[in-house]
Amino acid sequence: MPVSEAQQQEIEQLRDGTAKTLRATVPALEKMLYQPLPVLDQGFVRVIDYMGDDAAVVQAARVSYGRGTRKVSEDRGLLRYLMRHRHTTPFEMCEIKFHVKLPVFVARQWIRHRTASVNEYSARYSILNREFYIPAPDQLSAQSKDNRQGRGNVLRGDEAARVLSILREDAARNYADYQEMLNEDDEGNVLDPDRQGLARELARMNLPLSIYTEWYWKCDLHNLLHFLSLRADPHAQYEIRVYADAMMEALRAWVPLTAEAFEDYRLGSTHLSKGGLEVVKRMLAGEAVTAKDSGLSAREWRELMDVLGKS
Amino acid sequence: MPVSEAQQQEIEQLRDGTAKTLRATVPALEKMLYQPLPVLDQGFVRVIDYMGDDAAVVQAARVSYGRGTRKVSEDRGLLRYLMRHRHTTPFEMCEIKFHVKLPVFVARQWIRHRTASVNEYSARYSILNREFYIPAPDQLSAQSKDNRQGRGNVLRGDEAARVLSILREDAARNYADYQEMLNEDDEGNVLDPDRQGLARELARMNLPLSIYTEWYWKCDLHNLLHFLSLRADPHAQYEIRVYADAMMEALRAWVPLTAEAFEDYRLGSTHLSKGGLEVVKRMLAGEAVTAKDSGLSAREWRELMDVLGKS
Amino acid sequence: MPVSEAQQQEIEQLRDGTAKTLRATVPALEKMLYQPLPVLDQGFVRVIDYMGDDAAVVQAARVSYGRGTRKVSEDRGLLRYLMRHRHTTPFEMCEIKFHVKLPVFVARQWIRHRTASVNEYSARYSILNREFYIPAPDQLSAQSKDNRQGRGNVLRGDEAARVLSILREDAARNYADYQEMLNEDDEGNVLDPDRQGLARELARMNLPLSIYTEWYWKCDLHNLLHFLSLRADPHAQYEIRVYADAMMEALRAWVPLTAEAFEDYRLGSTHLSKGGLEVVKRMLAGEAVTAKDSGLSAREWRELMDVLGKS
Amino acid sequence: MPVSEAQQQEIEQLRDGTAKTLRATVPALEKMLYQPLPVLDQGFVRVIDYMGDDAAVVQAARVSYGRGTRKVSEDRGLLRYLMRHRHTTPFEMCEIKFHVKLPVFVARQWIRHRTASVNEYSARYSILNREFYIPAPDQLSAQSKDNRQGRGNVLRGDEAARVLSILREDAARNYADYQEMLNEDDEGNVLDPDRQGLARELARMNLPLSIYTEWYWKCDLHNLLHFLSLRADPHAQYEIRVYADAMMEALRAWVPLTAEAFEDYRLGSTHLSKGGLEVVKRMLAGEAVTAKDSGLSAREWRELMDVLGKS
Repeated sequence: MPVSEAQQQEIEQLRDGTAKTLRATVPALEKMLYQPLPVLDQGFVRVIDYMGDDAAVVQAARVSYGRGTRKVSEDRGLLRYLMRHRHTTPFEMCEIKFHVKLPVFVARQWIRHRTASVNEYSARYSILNREFYIPAPDQLSAQSKDNRQGRGNVLRGDEAARVLSILREDAARNYADYQEMLNEDDEGNVLDPDRQGLARELARMNLPLSIYTEWYWKCDLHNLLHFLSLRADPHAQYEIRVYADAMMEALRAWVPLTAEAFEDYRLGSTHLSKGGLEVVKRMLAGEAVTAKDSGLSAREWRELMDVLGKS
Repeated sequence: MPVSEAQQQEIEQLRDGTAKTLRATVPALEKMLYQPLPVLDQGFVRVIDYMGDDAAVVQAARVSYGRGTRKVSEDRGLLRYLMRHRHTTPFEMCEIKFHVKLPVFVARQWIRHRTASVNEYSARYSILNREFYIPAPDQLSAQSKDNRQGRGNVLRGDEAARVLSILREDAARNYADYQEMLNEDDEGNVLDPDRQGLARELARMNLPLSIYTEWYWKCDLHNLLHFLSLRADPHAQYEIRVYADAMMEALRAWVPLTAEAFEDYRLGSTHLSKGGLEVVKRMLAGEAVTAKDSGLSAREWRELMDVLGKS
Repeated sequence: MPVSEAQQQEIEQLRDGTAKTLRATVPALEKMLYQPLPVLDQGFVRVIDYMGDDAAVVQAARVSYGRGTRKVSEDRGLLRYLMRHRHTTPFEMCEIKFHVKLPVFVARQWIRHRTASVNEYSARYSILNREFYIPAPDQLSAQSKDNRQGRGNVLRGDEAARVLSILREDAARNYADYQEMLNEDDEGNVLDPDRQGLARELARMNLPLSIYTEWYWKCDLHNLLHFLSLRADPHAQYEIRVYADAMMEALRAWVPLTAEAFEDYRLGSTHLSKGGLEVVKRMLAGEAVTAKDSGLSAREWRELMDVLGKS
Repeated sequence: MPVSEAQQQEIEQLRDGTAKTLRATVPALEKMLYQPLPVLDQGFVRVIDYMGDDAAVVQAARVSYGRGTRKVSEDRGLLRYLMRHRHTTPFEMCEIKFHVKLPVFVARQWIRHRTASVNEYSARYSILNREFYIPAPDQLSAQSKDNRQGRGNVLRGDEAARVLSILREDAARNYADYQEMLNEDDEGNVLDPDRQGLARELARMNLPLSIYTEWYWKCDLHNLLHFLSLRADPHAQYEIRVYADAMMEALRAWVPLTAEAFEDYRLGSTHLSKGGLEVVKRMLAGEAVTAKDSGLSAREWRELMDVLGKS
């Protein structure tokens, strides 16, 4: 279970505390505030706080005294223009803060985004919980044959069963040994009064990368879009993509016009190189361009044909 | 006047629009929201938005599910501990956004802080207003004799009068010439139908560095404190220090416990080098240390005696 | 003249001091080292130092023990792959440092790139030289009629002459008044012993934005490419674009394979939105798509037709 | 062994390739270039490349045309002044690149420094080696009694032996299971032709945090000093501190004057709060200040007495 009962109560307490504010406020996101969106088997994403809305982007782009918005259609046009032409700085004027529970190997990819602020649960200071990511059966994929960085078919039968039991047993054993080295049980009682217990900062190194950790993670809207463009992408590893998907939900509730522009101009968009554009122009002029006379490498030709739906 | 009547109306409209929120809210800062705090002769700082409060720093430091606060005294203790030991990341979890009107030569110092987000009024796209900083008489200082980077006595009599008239006349003339090159008057009418008017992006280069510009400027609490520690410092140029002073007011309203810790441990604090600490220890042990046998350079000795109030 | 004789001598002294190194070294860039590339009427760009080469990008991408390169053709393929798919981190592993002399209004655009390191000549501490940017006649452009942020026709005859004389005269007068306020002549002699002289940090505010300043500017290859993609672009203001053009020369000497990939996949490339790609696919399938049934806004349709060379 | 024979050969090849350069060059660092400095049982730090030297800091601070240095004593004085007064930007003008081999739990602390560039060996793409950190007996410490984030006494006898055997056996088992899930042996041969093998990006999650990884890590001198001030500090975990110690060696070879100033003014320095400074002044004036009438909290009083060597 991603959240314990005691934690759920703390969350509900927060949701009882309405206040009045003069700030830009987004009712659709207020509805989601503090609530965990479940991800993977035991993880979650919760929106903890936010600053600004679609209009705040417009306001900053215009450096205006009031809200900066005119007609909704004008604001939408400006937001789409900014997105299309990569005028990114006005999108930095909104901010969002998440609380995330995620496996350590996912956290290791995630932390590579350096423009965010992070506070992580400290395993030097505290003891980690016995919670490990175990993939669902439909995510137990074989190594891809043609992509060294991807997945192939789903494993079946004995092989799948064997993998699951290894993951479960090794996690359980390593955690039991972690507790033995710490000399503490689940309730924090000393196991053996004749032992001192290994320092937490050392004992944790026995834990597998599938263990769950938690952090507060905050970034601005521009950098969130950059994160999502990489992590909501089909090339991202499934286990981080599902977090990006949950954050996309929050994005749509928070800044619907920006989210729409983002999906049109970034997520679903494609990049044509100088050579690729040349090929498209020749094809539009009626020429039957081939890989050979395209001026592109074999690999780039294949990528272009994929994009154009011609492969 | 820092703000026109039309602008004041836009601001008042914003102050009429109360909404309900579940977010952390700070009544003392809500009172200041959107209102210009006047700075220099025509400048201002306005708080446009904020995210988080003192408790949000505690919440992130504890990676907690609820608000994260316990007793106020415990929170205060933790905040002071974090500040004292430079655990800076939890302070990144709060965010504030200002609208600032400031002279260009101040903007050029300010922009050196790279960890903020900025949207500036564009003089490529729009025409700047006829607003220039003219120092108040008590700020018309001579070059310092012993600090190449500082001010000395206040100028008096004829010299002061001459400086003021130069600043005023050159600004007026350069602005008039700006308009002539643009071929536009104050109302945006064409001055001479036979001329085309120079591009805005070129004409602006005739304006002096005393002209006012405006920007939206947003940063997190940690980086704001860093900015304030440098710019609210006596070594900072007066014309940027007064902006920092106005922002300190906002800081005290927003995060009073953090502001208190900041003033105790950063603003009023001092740094002792290894050698300086050695000297202090010897003095505390009753030794009459001299510059000569202190092991410090002449300059560092002088700085240390200043700090200890012994010069 | 961009560089004085004394400065030229200092530069030549540097070019005499060969040393031996085990580091990655690029002969073509060594030839340019320290030499000013003239830009505008009195500005320049000089390469002061560099770290890494094309192979260093490959080496980091492979996290290798040796140089990391295999055959040149393999390295080239990998670099092009990284560029095409925006794997940007290996390009951060090379670094370059420039010394730049540029007008202040250009510096104000340039400094918006926050991922670089900068040390600028201080007008608080020192006195600026009497050097102002005066555009060449073919750059004296009118305001564009259809692009609020661009230039139109070149000014002619009397209007051009008038603009040039305004720029020259205002610069000369403001500088003379700067010296009068400082109470110093060109040689640093006191003008009037009965005056104190205004502090440098104040007097400078009388100088126009056309005055030249200087700075050391250092960034990594990835961020340099980002800078160049924005500033070597036709939409950039001419006065910063010429600096980007000079830096492109240095780029080609330094990392020729990276520069080639950059020109193919970034500079000459185009971005197709989800809707734009749909249109291209329909056109390739033989359909006569019109603005009306394209699903695009009028503006985006126009931009797409421009890109496809159909407008 | 930190480095295999084949890797050592690649390193030696690099050390054979002398080139001529006009760049600032540091013979003492050239001697260390590419060579692994061993850290922990199987880790290392290698300097791969560098840019600039002590004089380059001075050059940037002076925005000079030549090398910028005058007499060594003057340069030293300026560097010490910059360090003492936290004028940090000139230190950003030097850059260094390391290749580091380190356990994953150390990498997780290290990566929190966001101002560096990193390329890590990819466990999505490749298979990790069977190399785990096993602490030396004198580092097998108990949890500290009074510092939740620190170590106490060294474990002895049976408890120590038990910990070591747990760490070794769990690592060995988890790695064997990693290989079984991948369906590959040490030489990359398929173990069982009837199985597909789990994707690398999934199988890695079974590995413990003690496994070694590698990365290229590059940052500027200012940010390196910040890293070292936190990680060469006695409060840092031993396992990262030993890396910082090795990097201190490289620092001293590279920029000896900067390193000296850093050790005097940062590493060995202390910070006095406003209240702490007040206490010191009263003590210097002969007053017998007590915890009670100091105006400090009990904790801060204790910290101050520690600093002054009075506890």
